[in-house]
Amino acid sequence: MKCKLCGEVAQIELRNHNISLCKGHFLEFIEKRVTKTIEKYSLFNIIDKILVAVSGGKDSLALLHILKKMGFNVTGFYINLGIPVYSDASQEKCMIFSKKYDVPIYVFDLKSFFGIGVFEISKKIRRNSCSVCGIIKRYVMNRFGLEEGYTVLATGHNLDDEASFALGSVLNFDIQRLDKDRIILPSKDKALKKVKPLSFLTEKEVAGYTILNGIDYIYDECPYSKGATSMVYKRALNLIEERSPGTKLRFFKKIIENKELFKKSQENPLEEENQFCINCGYLTYREKCNFCLIAEKLLCDNKVRCNFFDNIFQL
Amino acid sequence: MKCKLCGEVAQIELRNHNISLCKGHFLEFIEKRVTKTIEKYSLFNIIDKILVAVSGGKDSLALLHILKKMGFNVTGFYINLGIPVYSDASQEKCMIFSKKYDVPIYVFDLKSFFGIGVFEISKKIRRNSCSVCGIIKRYVMNRFGLEEGYTVLATGHNLDDEASFALGSVLNFDIQRLDKDRIILPSKDKALKKVKPLSFLTEKEVAGYTILNGIDYIYDECPYSKGATSMVYKRALNLIEERSPGTKLRFFKKIIENKELFKKSQENPLEEENQFCINCGYLTYREKCNFCLIAEKLLCDNKVRCNFFDNIFQL
Repeated sequence: MKCKLCGEVAQIELRNHNISLCKGHFLEFIEKRVTKTIEKYSLFNIIDKILVAVSGGKDSLALLHILKKMGFNVTGFYINLGIPVYSDASQEKCMIFSKKYDVPIYVFDLKSFFGIGVFEISKKIRRNSCSVCGIIKRYVMNRFGLEEGYTVLATGHNLDDEASFALGSVLNFDIQRLDKDRIILPSKDKALKKVKPLSFLTEKEVAGYTILNGIDYIYDECPYSKGATSMVYKRALNLIEERSPGTKLRFFKKIIENKELFKKSQENPLEEENQFCINCGYLTYREKCNFCLIAEKLLCDNKVRCNFFDNIFQL
Repeated sequence: MKCKLCGEVAQIELRNHNISLCKGHFLEFIEKRVTKTIEKYSLFNIIDKILVAVSGGKDSLALLHILKKMGFNVTGFYINLGIPVYSDASQEKCMIFSKKYDVPIYVFDLKSFFGIGVFEISKKIRRNSCSVCGIIKRYVMNRFGLEEGYTVLATGHNLDDEASFALGSVLNFDIQRLDKDRIILPSKDKALKKVKPLSFLTEKEVAGYTILNGIDYIYDECPYSKGATSMVYKRALNLIEERSPGTKLRFFKKIIENKELFKKSQENPLEEENQFCINCGYLTYREKCNFCLIAEKLLCDNKVRCNFFDNIFQL
């Protein structure tokens, strides 16, 4: 197997693009594709102050690496969810990265804020831990970003994440979930702009990029995500991709191009009105935001107002 | 595991309906569901003369069995495609069924018509064998049905067939393929009405019905279908169904309910005009129909006009 561009020994075969590439040309290929996404969708530019959500996994560290290499003004943000072994091991990977590549990474420590980790919280308030995790991550990243003057929040969602979300939405006919831009979510009052620069790279491509760059990351998936339906959608798509390489990419592109079609699907679109949480002042659709409701149930909603930043430190 | 209806030992668990049933109640459950489909979509009634496409497999023999049991006027039609071992073994199963249940089954023998089987034809005319098989089956069944005074053609397509077709259409964004009725295709000039009474039964349910009724059928899939993408879509859906029972059924129902949405997706809908083949007189979208084009390439298009019925006999 030879590199299509230089004829040297190829390191990786990309069946979805019908090419094999050597290490150097593969890394270049990935970076070019990310640049193209950033430019095509006007995700951000050189004067933006970019906060990158990092988990210690391959996607978010690859994103931080690429953006730093391209010369963007980036800072990482890690949330330690208090998952035994896993959370500290992930934080360790973030610290190694921060030192090796000289990128500041901030940490919000859930346990020191709420007294307990995400799993205990989910048990206490009787909600699925993935949903609790999502609420906390979205809230904390957004609030930190806005209050610290960042202009955009970037996440490492890859093509597998996006295609499996779309597949789930189609199979359950929640197709109004597909009517929005998936790659860029514009800023609103009290909500930071959100972007996903890796949306057109498969999980395999991102893993290849991280490994060939020698970036140390946490291999394990979150222990609570094992039974998640999103994982099953990903496995199903991988089965199809194996038979028909390029399916994920074609599917996701069509979903984006046809978002107007999904708008038409809503006979009575639920236009939820933006409100601001009476406790913390941040965006919500009800009187109180989900984060404050969790805090209230755990009897520590005062902390949300007063001590939010006490639990954030730099690695 | 006990039958939900009578408390006896259950024979089968239907996770998609969240019930377990004994043999008797399971067979009743399946038959009721088919009755419901026939009535809800007005597929046919007691005065119809129904031609059932049979392959010797579980779906088509189950369909023939159910319709015969319900008192409909049914006749089977089998096409021997000349696939070594497989075709004769399948025909044998049809013959056994025909004798055991006293249902007439007619046979069209491809090899005696064209001189060669479907695989050799596909090699000779350089087309995929599944596509050649489809052209031949559709043509022969339709022509025999119309010329012999049948009023409807019923096929054994099950929920797995329909859901995987829909999944493939969505993934490849061929969504205009979903704008038609999938369960009933009305008759047109020179085209028999086509119906699929098993559309809401999973492959597993149909297999259960066939086995518990002691119907002998051919277990193997067609040897040429192994690499088919439809098989991969089915495996992918089974993976998801295993995690979230009922997904296939919900998905397919939504596809049917929302067919208007897929119509909207066509900015320039290709309204193909019906024509009639200048050779045989049957429906086509070009000057000559696909069946006659195959016959022409094999230098036997005269046969289509003159000797079509010579190759059909009753089992």
